[in-house]
Amino acid sequence: MVSVSQFDRDRLERLYQVAGVCERIAAGETVSRALAGRLLINLFFEPSTRTRLSFGSAFLRLGGMVESTVDESFSSMAKGETLEDTIRVIDGYADAIVLRHKEKGAAARAAAVATRPVINAGDGPGEHPTQALLDLYTVLKERGRIDGLHIAMVGDLLNGRTVHSLSKLLGRFEGVRITFASPSILAMPPALLEELSAAGVSWRTVDSVDRAVGEADVLYVTRLQAERFADPAAAAQQIAHFVVSRDLLERAGRSQDLTILHPLPRVFDLSTDVDSLPGAAYFRQAHNGVPIRMALFCDLFGVDPL
Amino acid sequence: MVSVSQFDRDRLERLYQVAGVCERIAAGETVSRALAGRLLINLFFEPSTRTRLSFGSAFLRLGGMVESTVDESFSSMAKGETLEDTIRVIDGYADAIVLRHKEKGAAARAAAVATRPVINAGDGPGEHPTQALLDLYTVLKERGRIDGLHIAMVGDLLNGRTVHSLSKLLGRFEGVRITFASPSILAMPPALLEELSAAGVSWRTVDSVDRAVGEADVLYVTRLQAERFADPAAAAQQIAHFVVSRDLLERAGRSQDLTILHPLPRVFDLSTDVDSLPGAAYFRQAHNGVPIRMALFCDLFGVDPL
Amino acid sequence: MVSVSQFDRDRLERLYQVAGVCERIAAGETVSRALAGRLLINLFFEPSTRTRLSFGSAFLRLGGMVESTVDESFSSMAKGETLEDTIRVIDGYADAIVLRHKEKGAAARAAAVATRPVINAGDGPGEHPTQALLDLYTVLKERGRIDGLHIAMVGDLLNGRTVHSLSKLLGRFEGVRITFASPSILAMPPALLEELSAAGVSWRTVDSVDRAVGEADVLYVTRLQAERFADPAAAAQQIAHFVVSRDLLERAGRSQDLTILHPLPRVFDLSTDVDSLPGAAYFRQAHNGVPIRMALFCDLFGVDPL
Repeated sequence: MVSVSQFDRDRLERLYQVAGVCERIAAGETVSRALAGRLLINLFFEPSTRTRLSFGSAFLRLGGMVESTVDESFSSMAKGETLEDTIRVIDGYADAIVLRHKEKGAAARAAAVATRPVINAGDGPGEHPTQALLDLYTVLKERGRIDGLHIAMVGDLLNGRTVHSLSKLLGRFEGVRITFASPSILAMPPALLEELSAAGVSWRTVDSVDRAVGEADVLYVTRLQAERFADPAAAAQQIAHFVVSRDLLERAGRSQDLTILHPLPRVFDLSTDVDSLPGAAYFRQAHNGVPIRMALFCDLFGVDPL
Repeated sequence: MVSVSQFDRDRLERLYQVAGVCERIAAGETVSRALAGRLLINLFFEPSTRTRLSFGSAFLRLGGMVESTVDESFSSMAKGETLEDTIRVIDGYADAIVLRHKEKGAAARAAAVATRPVINAGDGPGEHPTQALLDLYTVLKERGRIDGLHIAMVGDLLNGRTVHSLSKLLGRFEGVRITFASPSILAMPPALLEELSAAGVSWRTVDSVDRAVGEADVLYVTRLQAERFADPAAAAQQIAHFVVSRDLLERAGRSQDLTILHPLPRVFDLSTDVDSLPGAAYFRQAHNGVPIRMALFCDLFGVDPL
Repeated sequence: MVSVSQFDRDRLERLYQVAGVCERIAAGETVSRALAGRLLINLFFEPSTRTRLSFGSAFLRLGGMVESTVDESFSSMAKGETLEDTIRVIDGYADAIVLRHKEKGAAARAAAVATRPVINAGDGPGEHPTQALLDLYTVLKERGRIDGLHIAMVGDLLNGRTVHSLSKLLGRFEGVRITFASPSILAMPPALLEELSAAGVSWRTVDSVDRAVGEADVLYVTRLQAERFADPAAAAQQIAHFVVSRDLLERAGRSQDLTILHPLPRVFDLSTDVDSLPGAAYFRQAHNGVPIRMALFCDLFGVDPL
């Protein structure tokens, strides 16, 4: 499980159906033994605590066993071992490997030599497919459908792999519109915009959050990092147009009916005064990571969650 | 479970009764399934290996599942996320959170936003309540009672949160006397002494271990750190009066009947030649951490250990 | 379990018989509950990810529970605690301790104070006995026997603790011959050669891989580190004679029938073009670590794996 490109609409819909069943297991309300006797290794070459814990919770709650490495002080790699050799060894210790690595393409290289399933938990500037799967699942749960929705995406759209993957997944559905709002130097890559057009997604770009929220059903906010800008003073001015606050949403008349998502962690890009709005769904979004990853494990092992 | 102030005498006695039942489970002599299907996350923002392992052993031995973070390289925090946001996310991954943090008040802040139980495993200069609970439990086990005991506390009483918490808990019992022995610059905080007086504890201060051990039933030794003193030469001289050695105990005629505790790790403050004395209870004290934490989990989840 | 010296031929043969049974459990084909209710602590004072994961997989797959520390940022040690104190505390948290430490003799010191089994997972320049046990097991599996075999050992034979331990174990069998090939400054220690002679092992030394592979049944390759040589230019020239490549094996007529082992990680000492040869057994060797460690745990706890 290396890329969102492995998920067509049918597979997504099956996944989300199973995820729905998994929610009670994820909440600890039902005990599952679906993966009893199965062993997962979380092989993390860089720290990503919530991703690691979320995969671990999913596997454990399905009755499986989990071992983990937590950062790149991974000893054999420090001695110059290739990723392929590491994977060939670990492959004999577990029934599945969740891989986090800072290099793009690492998950595909690992999957090529492994005999057990490899799940991509982020390969640097590449993909973080389970994040995109849970983002889309959250849209579905919060709005009841995906076809015909209008999504606004705000922030660093150049470097944000979550918006790239989510956009691609939205292209599997009908009548989706996307509004992209970012500083001009952090705009969506043109190649990706062409891909969206080819997939039938209707998109436009705007230069502030104010202009993005007007007709949207969902606002997807991402982190803005001051260090992306050459000039700190200009950065502050630019960033001000892309901060999502309660005041901004109220002025736009969207404080009650807009669904607000964020992959977290947030810093200044999303004010805490938004948290109490009914559409503030970002913590529910984070929690959806567990049932989605459960559904994925059930898919990979060919088992039912209950 | 944030502070020892949440424990009155009744709750302490119930806890210790359950801990007694848990001892056989902690020793691996009986297998418990009390927490089957429950998932604990050890969220440690600073390393504290024995505390983490002890909580983990307690939860696992009760049939539960455990995931852990081991130090503050916690990735999202490094990106500037607030503790509250982190807790709100992790809260959806587990049935309980054990939190270790370097800031005083962190556990209370976490408990305020979590929907699941948060257990304070040390919040910097704040409290480390389960250490105090196991300390008191050890006094009870080693002496058979707490009412009417005379406890001597030795070492750095200014910064030692364990002696602060233990003193407060002793105040829940009848006829307790405490002798405090420390360098003058590392004496117990006056506000805490007033609190003890108000609770009916009879206390005095002395300036050496020799003067403290005379009539005590229990000697509670804590670490002295040379770097607390401005003048290294003066430090060495001062510290010499607060080192507990076998020779000192023999000269005082207390080598056979005094119960000796230490929260560990020790360095030079407690000589290894004390280890073979019958009252050297500090390793038993450390081991009591597991049944105490088991009893606490049983309390929080409302289950019996067997 | 501190040293290979604790294994005579009978104990080795029993261990390998049990390991054979454990292979299906290690592969996830059969579920074992042999260690249900048992708790292992992996106490690693330096990182060694694959060793830690391999021990963990073995214990978990036998139905046990595992907790781990991952590196020497072990907090109490940083405060100056002795290894003995640490072990006395951890001893009360678990049913067995796997210890990795950088100091020779650490495992023996730990075993001396522990009441539970301590398994040596590498004590610096000392031993790494489970590596030697799995190496020998791999020889047995790949060649069907050990008596009468001819083993060639190549690389840094001075500092390589794996070749030292494996040589000693080979001395328990009949008619074994060993050819040692290394740069002269990295030759086997004379005391060890004398010990092998006394054990009835017939050995010789040669100065290149070419001269070693002629009559050998098994080629055991170890890492060569350029920094071991005073003169970098001389190092490169020397090392060239000890790199194992497909070309070298084909020129020697040994590309089809020679069993090739390596404790991994490899760097330049073993070319990846060797991987597809039928006798390239080093990844199978790594995987054998799990059933061997399972068999060892069964031995220590006196249980059958199934």
